[in-house]
Amino acid sequence: MIDNSFPGKDVSADDIQTKFPLAAKKSVDHKSIVEVGNKSFGGLYVPVMGGPNTVESLDLILKCANHAKKCHIDILRGGAYKPLTFPYRSEKYFETRSKGIEWLGIAKKETGLLTVSEIVHEDQLNEMKNNIDILQIGTRNMQNFPLLLHCARSGKPILLKRGFGSSIRDLLGAAEHILLEGNSRVILCERGVVAPHTHRASSRFLLDIQAVPALHEITHLPVVVDPSHACFWAPWVPALAKASIASNADGLMLEFHPDPSNAAVDPLQPLSFEEINDLMPVLTAVAKAANERLLGVQK
Amino acid sequence: MIDNSFPGKDVSADDIQTKFPLAAKKSVDHKSIVEVGNKSFGGLYVPVMGGPNTVESLDLILKCANHAKKCHIDILRGGAYKPLTFPYRSEKYFETRSKGIEWLGIAKKETGLLTVSEIVHEDQLNEMKNNIDILQIGTRNMQNFPLLLHCARSGKPILLKRGFGSSIRDLLGAAEHILLEGNSRVILCERGVVAPHTHRASSRFLLDIQAVPALHEITHLPVVVDPSHACFWAPWVPALAKASIASNADGLMLEFHPDPSNAAVDPLQPLSFEEINDLMPVLTAVAKAANERLLGVQK
Amino acid sequence: MIDNSFPGKDVSADDIQTKFPLAAKKSVDHKSIVEVGNKSFGGLYVPVMGGPNTVESLDLILKCANHAKKCHIDILRGGAYKPLTFPYRSEKYFETRSKGIEWLGIAKKETGLLTVSEIVHEDQLNEMKNNIDILQIGTRNMQNFPLLLHCARSGKPILLKRGFGSSIRDLLGAAEHILLEGNSRVILCERGVVAPHTHRASSRFLLDIQAVPALHEITHLPVVVDPSHACFWAPWVPALAKASIASNADGLMLEFHPDPSNAAVDPLQPLSFEEINDLMPVLTAVAKAANERLLGVQK
Amino acid sequence: MIDNSFPGKDVSADDIQTKFPLAAKKSVDHKSIVEVGNKSFGGLYVPVMGGPNTVESLDLILKCANHAKKCHIDILRGGAYKPLTFPYRSEKYFETRSKGIEWLGIAKKETGLLTVSEIVHEDQLNEMKNNIDILQIGTRNMQNFPLLLHCARSGKPILLKRGFGSSIRDLLGAAEHILLEGNSRVILCERGVVAPHTHRASSRFLLDIQAVPALHEITHLPVVVDPSHACFWAPWVPALAKASIASNADGLMLEFHPDPSNAAVDPLQPLSFEEINDLMPVLTAVAKAANERLLGVQK
Repeated sequence: MIDNSFPGKDVSADDIQTKFPLAAKKSVDHKSIVEVGNKSFGGLYVPVMGGPNTVESLDLILKCANHAKKCHIDILRGGAYKPLTFPYRSEKYFETRSKGIEWLGIAKKETGLLTVSEIVHEDQLNEMKNNIDILQIGTRNMQNFPLLLHCARSGKPILLKRGFGSSIRDLLGAAEHILLEGNSRVILCERGVVAPHTHRASSRFLLDIQAVPALHEITHLPVVVDPSHACFWAPWVPALAKASIASNADGLMLEFHPDPSNAAVDPLQPLSFEEINDLMPVLTAVAKAANERLLGVQK
Repeated sequence: MIDNSFPGKDVSADDIQTKFPLAAKKSVDHKSIVEVGNKSFGGLYVPVMGGPNTVESLDLILKCANHAKKCHIDILRGGAYKPLTFPYRSEKYFETRSKGIEWLGIAKKETGLLTVSEIVHEDQLNEMKNNIDILQIGTRNMQNFPLLLHCARSGKPILLKRGFGSSIRDLLGAAEHILLEGNSRVILCERGVVAPHTHRASSRFLLDIQAVPALHEITHLPVVVDPSHACFWAPWVPALAKASIASNADGLMLEFHPDPSNAAVDPLQPLSFEEINDLMPVLTAVAKAANERLLGVQK
Repeated sequence: MIDNSFPGKDVSADDIQTKFPLAAKKSVDHKSIVEVGNKSFGGLYVPVMGGPNTVESLDLILKCANHAKKCHIDILRGGAYKPLTFPYRSEKYFETRSKGIEWLGIAKKETGLLTVSEIVHEDQLNEMKNNIDILQIGTRNMQNFPLLLHCARSGKPILLKRGFGSSIRDLLGAAEHILLEGNSRVILCERGVVAPHTHRASSRFLLDIQAVPALHEITHLPVVVDPSHACFWAPWVPALAKASIASNADGLMLEFHPDPSNAAVDPLQPLSFEEINDLMPVLTAVAKAANERLLGVQK
Repeated sequence: MIDNSFPGKDVSADDIQTKFPLAAKKSVDHKSIVEVGNKSFGGLYVPVMGGPNTVESLDLILKCANHAKKCHIDILRGGAYKPLTFPYRSEKYFETRSKGIEWLGIAKKETGLLTVSEIVHEDQLNEMKNNIDILQIGTRNMQNFPLLLHCARSGKPILLKRGFGSSIRDLLGAAEHILLEGNSRVILCERGVVAPHTHRASSRFLLDIQAVPALHEITHLPVVVDPSHACFWAPWVPALAKASIASNADGLMLEFHPDPSNAAVDPLQPLSFEEINDLMPVLTAVAKAANERLLGVQK
């Protein structure tokens, strides 16, 4: 009466063979290392990406870049092309667009840090070419397949964020589109999902920590976690960042800001300079204690 | 200790004023009528959109178009550009692309039916110009804002499907992007959401019937329901279609196929020709009984 | 690598044979009729249960009972033993307990209506014996198995509400406990589930209308719907009540109150006397139009 | 148009004052220590509760108790009264009931370990009096208020598991019922919730790690985590246990079994003796690294 032959929301053995063979592990120990400049995801070392939600100004991103370096954060993050849920925000602050990308490029040159930023249309590929090291596909575009293909063809490493309503099965399907196009540098990112309860009325997402071991069981691709977007509430970020590293995530993305309460976007979310500074050595210790891995250390 | 001033997942009074003023009702009775050719959404008459999941061939779509006409279905639906969760399906069947759009155009000419089909990139606007009457933004692209803007500027009516993980707050935000661009012909579509339980292992979504009165409370835009994609199981579609009409939905989208078990995509989902034929007069009766509205009648 | 042999959250073919064989249909047309006094659930006629959330006073319940009769509502509902999420409500209003049961008994005698009320402990069985016709197992007690067994042994018909976090698989498991104990008069009730989005910050649940056809596919037991508790917002109740009847529910539970804004519990939820009076003939028309069934008519 | 004055699913500032004042923190640093025998929850030391899902036999529980001692696990867990979702399991294996409680008592005497076991009805209080140190309220009974009150009055410490569909707001409401009855020894337990995606078809729950910092922000009560029941898949348990400790949980509950694949109940879930033995020193290191806390060490 009930037919189970069609695949549903969770991963089945058949999916691994037929739906995402390139993303699937070939053996229990199969693990890919994705190299980006002088950093790599999926190996002994666990890179941390950090920075402000939005590249508000050149001054801001330079401040953040310098602080990132000081804290041994590996990669500078910053949003320039932001998908805005509602259209009524001042563009000056919230979508710096090509200017924001340019500023990230300046910060990259001045500090030597690698950069990651979200892309929302293939038109942006050209200006990102020299300024951005990792193309971020945001949660709202995980299944924007034309965008995935354009990014795949750029040859750049891709940080593929899980759709907030998407299963890891769908995430692996999206990764497979990129892999099949010949780009093997895919980094998966858990960033919070919709759920019945998020504990605060201002929150929209719940961190799915279970996705880390689940993805590690199925795929050889590196898996990173973004706890800032998941919980949207700075006081919870340190606990969730430590939990992510303890669960053996292959990387971390964290928001910080020199003046969180005056951040142009999502001021409830970023850590202060002091908080990120205090957190990094704890994450280093947790990475070592939990999984014998290195994080944030001087190399 | 807990700050509720920032908006979360559900709609607040402030949202209505500041986040989507164009989509929001101005008064309790405010209701927009979206006209498409000789049909309209949001008025006394409740249009039904029907057809196959995929425009598999010219023959198939002509068969479906003729059956649609016979059943008093108003608008022919069919997918040509399909977002494929996994990349390993034969393109011959599942993405007919420009050929599929062309075939829909032929069916439109032969039967006089209006057409609706999904667009996934602005490159497709040109070929859709004469063949497609309503541009469908699919669930995976609800927050693909560049696509929304390109479609808005085309001047065509837009069927905006709710993201399967998105709140109606986010849906109204996406609609606002289109409205602000000057295109007022937006039709909202509830098509199933992710949920803890979907009752069948092969299902991924749950029909959110509560969204119909909720949207009607907040917005003047017409609200239609697609029960086929929501439940992904043909035997449940008639009950859910009747429920949707009873809840006062302003339109319906239904999949049907001359040979459901051999449908190229999602064969568990479409109604047979006989089933859709039997269902239409019942829907007519329910529309009348529940809300004094007209549906599928000879006009 | 992934083992699917263990049952998960949705119903599998194996479940039907081994987990709830008594609750499962024996054939496609298998449908049980549960008789309660001169009413029956699961047949041509669709009973409506209505009344206040809480039996606040004898006067209130008599008013409601008389209004119920006038509107052709079949069964009087009212809570006396209420599970209170938080312990700080005045007991005078919110838990009338044995007094509330007694008042329901008086209303039953005066009007001849059948009664339904929630039981939370077997100690209450005795006082319910003559006053209450249907024992309601509330959503929080769906898997309180000692309570299920005590109620089963009482021989009374049982309205088993689905747990707000429970699958229909678990609901059928709970029903099976009662059936196996020898009590075949089980009425299943969908009353809203937890979900990522409920559209209002004050809501906690989403009506799962898909459960109606899903349960009808699997079980022969009658299925009723309680839209009032699902959406917790009176303005949406008529649309959802009509949808429930259109989906072929075998009964309905509705809250109404002579003075909703002054209801002792959950004042956002009940319909007014006028609203329930207006709604009933519409439901009658929908039941007829959608499924050729009778509802609320003079018999 | 939209009224937000009524509390919904997430915690509001008003809830803290009026719904659960006893459970709520009085100041940022307010933290309660719950003492059980020579152990305490909420202090520097983080107790681990471990053992089999079910007290299958005296021999099994003695083996597990001795292994627990060897691994520096603090408290022996084992189910005797099990809420069975479906009624068709052999009682011999799955519900040892009073015999199981007796066997736990023997293991307690022989090893000096404290014990924790689930109670489902107040009738069991007497036999648990001397054999069980912590009464566990299971996820299905979190809002079985008569049971909560009976357990509160026993004076024993109570491990209150979060309902799998319940918000932490509701969890704190349930705790408040116990506290108001005069029993202050309440330990809260996150054990997995329902969610749209659980990654395996055999899983029903998702670990809500976000609940740990969320509860720590609001309540002074200790918060423990049960990753075994959350993910239902032994290979993920170590990663989730490490994450729980890193998130600053005040305790852990873990299932282990001498022969997992032949466990009487839920054989996918328990760790082997070797696995728990290997895990404990890692958890000790993580507790130290992440939060300067002690776990499992010889005291």
